[in-house]
Amino acid sequence: MSAPSVVIVGAGFAGLNAAKLLGRKGRDLDITVVDRRNYHLFQPLLYQVAMAALSPAEIAYPIRSLLSEYPNIRVLLGDVKDISLSEKQIKGDFGSLRFDYLLVATGSAHSYFGHDEWEEYAPGLKSLEQATEIRRRVLTAFELAERESDPEQQKAQLTFVIIGGGPTGVELAGALGEISRYTLEKDFRHIDPRRTRVVLIEAGKRVLATFHPACSARALRDLERLGVNVWTGTRVSRVTAEGVGMGEEFLRARTVIWAAGVQPSPLNRFLSSDLDKRGRVKAEKDLSLAGHPNVFVVGDQALFEQDGAALPGLAPVAMQQGREAARNIMRLARGEKTKAFRYHDKGTMATVGRSRAVVELGKIHFFGLLAWITWLFVHIYYLIGFRNRMFVLVQWIWSYATFGRGARLIVHKNWKMEK
Amino acid sequence: MSAPSVVIVGAGFAGLNAAKLLGRKGRDLDITVVDRRNYHLFQPLLYQVAMAALSPAEIAYPIRSLLSEYPNIRVLLGDVKDISLSEKQIKGDFGSLRFDYLLVATGSAHSYFGHDEWEEYAPGLKSLEQATEIRRRVLTAFELAERESDPEQQKAQLTFVIIGGGPTGVELAGALGEISRYTLEKDFRHIDPRRTRVVLIEAGKRVLATFHPACSARALRDLERLGVNVWTGTRVSRVTAEGVGMGEEFLRARTVIWAAGVQPSPLNRFLSSDLDKRGRVKAEKDLSLAGHPNVFVVGDQALFEQDGAALPGLAPVAMQQGREAARNIMRLARGEKTKAFRYHDKGTMATVGRSRAVVELGKIHFFGLLAWITWLFVHIYYLIGFRNRMFVLVQWIWSYATFGRGARLIVHKNWKMEK
Repeated sequence: MSAPSVVIVGAGFAGLNAAKLLGRKGRDLDITVVDRRNYHLFQPLLYQVAMAALSPAEIAYPIRSLLSEYPNIRVLLGDVKDISLSEKQIKGDFGSLRFDYLLVATGSAHSYFGHDEWEEYAPGLKSLEQATEIRRRVLTAFELAERESDPEQQKAQLTFVIIGGGPTGVELAGALGEISRYTLEKDFRHIDPRRTRVVLIEAGKRVLATFHPACSARALRDLERLGVNVWTGTRVSRVTAEGVGMGEEFLRARTVIWAAGVQPSPLNRFLSSDLDKRGRVKAEKDLSLAGHPNVFVVGDQALFEQDGAALPGLAPVAMQQGREAARNIMRLARGEKTKAFRYHDKGTMATVGRSRAVVELGKIHFFGLLAWITWLFVHIYYLIGFRNRMFVLVQWIWSYATFGRGARLIVHKNWKMEK
Repeated sequence: MSAPSVVIVGAGFAGLNAAKLLGRKGRDLDITVVDRRNYHLFQPLLYQVAMAALSPAEIAYPIRSLLSEYPNIRVLLGDVKDISLSEKQIKGDFGSLRFDYLLVATGSAHSYFGHDEWEEYAPGLKSLEQATEIRRRVLTAFELAERESDPEQQKAQLTFVIIGGGPTGVELAGALGEISRYTLEKDFRHIDPRRTRVVLIEAGKRVLATFHPACSARALRDLERLGVNVWTGTRVSRVTAEGVGMGEEFLRARTVIWAAGVQPSPLNRFLSSDLDKRGRVKAEKDLSLAGHPNVFVVGDQALFEQDGAALPGLAPVAMQQGREAARNIMRLARGEKTKAFRYHDKGTMATVGRSRAVVELGKIHFFGLLAWITWLFVHIYYLIGFRNRMFVLVQWIWSYATFGRGARLIVHKNWKMEK
């Protein structure tokens, strides 16, 4: 009898952690990891690529290399287009693949709340391509402002709007505030980069709404110190090439970034017809799919309720769920019963520019330099791969010492010769 | 009276060196540097980006930062579309700009010898965009081969063709030989990366034709040791999505790279109606344009004859010409006579993979490890900017120790959400 086959779709935090555990402890299993990218992306630092502080390769690592030490794992570059639970197979551009056990961990994309046409003018920040696109737009805005003679145009070029006041929005706004205040200061002749306007728009009452109110208040103060205008309780009704509309008001801005709202992977429609209003599929207590004990769904695309509330779409949740799902697959393969998953909250944090962050550990929360150092070490620690850790650390030390940014390149999409 | 204005078009090796000299010594001049990129690119290491060894930001540096210390220099991101010598102005997407002195140093692009339709199937290697496109194609070829069941298809996916046996072609072929022999070995399950075929096609009699025949012979042997097939005296007559045709013969290959032939910048047509058969514009002894003593043309786009032969399109030629043109501009501004330019050949070199290179210094030439170490230090030394130097050195030490490649990312052109 051949080894039971495990297919893991998605090598994000959940899929990668599941694969590593199965690689180490599930030697009697035949494991395939399918991802449409050839690399694992360390999403928490993606905003630093968008803000020209890090290079893509510093936060991305080939999945093959991460898993090459496990002879029972095979890695497949592939785009999964269909999942058939009854036939126990997945299909995609790679052909089809049978599974005995399936782990689906394909994460989430942005949601424009029914306004997908806004994407053109307000890219989100989920992929490396989006990060370099945002970097291109931000750096180009400064270049165009430098050569602009019309003051109205220049004002629009120097106005940056971030929609969404969660951790990503706050981190982007803080970094933009810093770039305009410090990094670009001496490089421009005709514009004063300090005339830059950074506006962070949040529909809710406060930024970092999932944090303690004291953290929100401190983040707000740190942002304002960097010159960021924070508009809470403000709902965006229109995004165009010219800027952002909020009811009657219209803010002219050349650069708009979307950091509000996510939607789960569209693969969910093959897993259940009963999705929640955000499109997530409900996971059972042991992370399996109702009626399909051999199929597990974890991470951003899953709805998992604990103590009466849905777990948030955070990296630690995905990592812990991925590992528990892997353990449950091994239990089933040994003929044992699965166990229920429980999330252990080790804390959340967000940084607001140089030397400033907010950290929440259970009932404790703290701010400022200590929080920033904590943030730094936690991110370095979790950043996959020894080499990347070292490079990012060196980059950060360099940037801290010089106020410089290491990756200020405007790279275009067209690779063909310009005529 | 206002300061005489100097416009430098292009911030490659020639333009950047001219600008730095004028920034330091031409304080009484009003200097504008125009480039369509926001960064200076260290072209000699571009092949390492294409081969996933370095990240774009490690060989590119913002022009603004490189010149920000000079208060007499202004940097403009702009695409020059027209040069009017009679009106003494340039025009482009930035508007128009008047000059008293003009330095044109916009380099060269690839030439497909009248077959521009080949570019789609055989990208050249002149820009960062092209380098990441080549990286994408090479890495994707291995991924597709891994999931391929048809042996004929797999063979085509594992066949890499480089057209052109100059330094770039030799360096690419050597790196590809190494990747397939060492780097990817343990990462794949279904293919043996050593079955990769790398073919270097050269129309002339030998590779590195501008070097001493002993260097060519040694490079050939080093390439063959890495498993590269070198086909000299072979002329390409067709490039398609399927591969490369050479008269009757057709070689199926999914990945083809163009490293043969360059053509000067199209701006030359505004400088003279009398271009040489390669499209270069003739520079006078003092690097000025005949009939226009205030206009200088240097680098790849200029034809400069010394001792009866045209100088080659190399970085050291461009750097020396840029500096001499800058000196001649300062002489004219002081009312002095210009001086003739003379190129001092400090040597040429090319690397053929790990620990192997060929170096030619005047009448001396040497190979192997010593040549490779020389190559390494010369490139580190000339790589602009302290930070990049340090990062590249660290990358190289890491790669040498681990046989790893730091930037194995397949990045796509489309940044929008995949549905």
